[in-house]
Amino acid sequence: MRTTPLLKSDTLSELIRGEVLIKAESLQITGAFKFRGAFYRLLNLTDCQKVQGVIAYSSGNFAAGLSAAGQLLDIPVKLVMPHDAPKSKIHNARHYGAEVILCHGKEPSREEAASDFARKIAHDHGAVLLHPFDDNEIIIGQASVALELQEQLAMTGKTCDHILCPVGGGSLVAGSSLVFDSSTQVWAVEVDGYQGMGISLEKGRRSRAKGHVLCDCDALLSLEPGIANLDIVLQTGVRGITVNAQQAHDAVRLSFHEMNLVLEPSGAVAIAAIMKNPALFENKTVVAIGSGGNVDAEKYASILQAT
Amino acid sequence: MRTTPLLKSDTLSELIRGEVLIKAESLQITGAFKFRGAFYRLLNLTDCQKVQGVIAYSSGNFAAGLSAAGQLLDIPVKLVMPHDAPKSKIHNARHYGAEVILCHGKEPSREEAASDFARKIAHDHGAVLLHPFDDNEIIIGQASVALELQEQLAMTGKTCDHILCPVGGGSLVAGSSLVFDSSTQVWAVEVDGYQGMGISLEKGRRSRAKGHVLCDCDALLSLEPGIANLDIVLQTGVRGITVNAQQAHDAVRLSFHEMNLVLEPSGAVAIAAIMKNPALFENKTVVAIGSGGNVDAEKYASILQAT
Repeated sequence: MRTTPLLKSDTLSELIRGEVLIKAESLQITGAFKFRGAFYRLLNLTDCQKVQGVIAYSSGNFAAGLSAAGQLLDIPVKLVMPHDAPKSKIHNARHYGAEVILCHGKEPSREEAASDFARKIAHDHGAVLLHPFDDNEIIIGQASVALELQEQLAMTGKTCDHILCPVGGGSLVAGSSLVFDSSTQVWAVEVDGYQGMGISLEKGRRSRAKGHVLCDCDALLSLEPGIANLDIVLQTGVRGITVNAQQAHDAVRLSFHEMNLVLEPSGAVAIAAIMKNPALFENKTVVAIGSGGNVDAEKYASILQAT
Repeated sequence: MRTTPLLKSDTLSELIRGEVLIKAESLQITGAFKFRGAFYRLLNLTDCQKVQGVIAYSSGNFAAGLSAAGQLLDIPVKLVMPHDAPKSKIHNARHYGAEVILCHGKEPSREEAASDFARKIAHDHGAVLLHPFDDNEIIIGQASVALELQEQLAMTGKTCDHILCPVGGGSLVAGSSLVFDSSTQVWAVEVDGYQGMGISLEKGRRSRAKGHVLCDCDALLSLEPGIANLDIVLQTGVRGITVNAQQAHDAVRLSFHEMNLVLEPSGAVAIAAIMKNPALFENKTVVAIGSGGNVDAEKYASILQAT
């Protein structure tokens, strides 16, 4: 695991007349916090499971994180990926030694077809089936971001009033909320149209967002939170907040200009939430997790060039 | 001062069949290692000098580093900058509370006219005149990169066989070479046409490069090394090496794709030197300093889009 830096943003600090710090998980191994949960999950397999290996469905940052963790721990990793996943992501997983199995199924959805396919392979080959976020040990692994952050804050005698986490399925926000006590408000930041966690928090039970909004925050497009994740955040007092893709792009640009930090749009939504709602954070010490930085060069260049 | 991360590059490690680590000074306060030297220099002013304040000529990363250090330490900073310096750089210096004085002189060169102007103001107003790199205390301040690096290596039980430093005037390489003993080879990486340090090392005395090569490594365009810097590197066994702008761009792209790291072309030349000469570093542990990341969005986008 890499200790990732905590970078102060002067611009955002001035905006809220407080202090805003960015936890740069884009510099984690494989470029996203997902490595943490994957590594911890694999560490806690039984010896017999370590020999059997694991299988998972993912086309995103979990795929790279799990592959790299498997390589480091010498545990076989099989990954089911949609046949039309970005070539760079398939290449990455193979580069880290994972066996990639392409899935052509589309019914009822691409994700569910691949997930069913992964379950079948797990059954036939005796591999351990992993869920990318709805898993208590993965949640605990992601909590290491918040533990590390607490240590970094303690070294400078600071405490944190608010922490904002980008949310897809919700393992990062669930893990973080377990670490901080009630003196820190933990926020689940989602993208408009995909605020399954926010709706679930409001209703007090697992609910689906509508989706169908065009959006390049590809790591955050889950329609509903993980069951384990929601169980936790309902007890820890997490609050929901949303931004749109345009606001995420503004945050991507700010991170580049002010901090030389590459964030993917999904990884920048926590920063975007502060930019959108400065009054919520006035005079406070606020940490935004920059959760990932894996974005194609073409895409990134076009975001930088837009104004 | 920020502790900057040390990031492993798998691609470069495979290339040399050893281990390549990047010290990401692009994430230092103000986006370049220059803050370190400026901060240390200001800390070591006498109480009387701290009240008088300092003046320097710079249009680059030293300007931002000195301004931010002055703001933190509450020491007045005057900066002479060419009137046609990039607006973002003038804005940055003012943002950090420096008084910016624009200089219109062009004779004998833009740099020397501004430098003379700064000397005159220092004389008239009693401010302490600082040189951006040819200054023993600034060299010692830059050495903190290498001290921090040694600590980071020691924590994982590693030693470093080679360390590569981008060189403009040479304060970073001089400072680094003071920290490491002869079991570590320190390299001065310059850009073709501006290898004043390399030529001086060969000849054993201060010599000028020819310049006049079109190149966007704007932080490395010094024609000759600082006197204090050369004195040191002649005694510490530093070796010279060059790359061209195209190779620097390749390194900028690699840093983005593999590590989510924004480097300016000048900041990427140490990485470029490894890519150009892998055989020199075979089977070794090598650290390249990514010395800065301050690059315009348009420029950066065009480098990412070129192939």
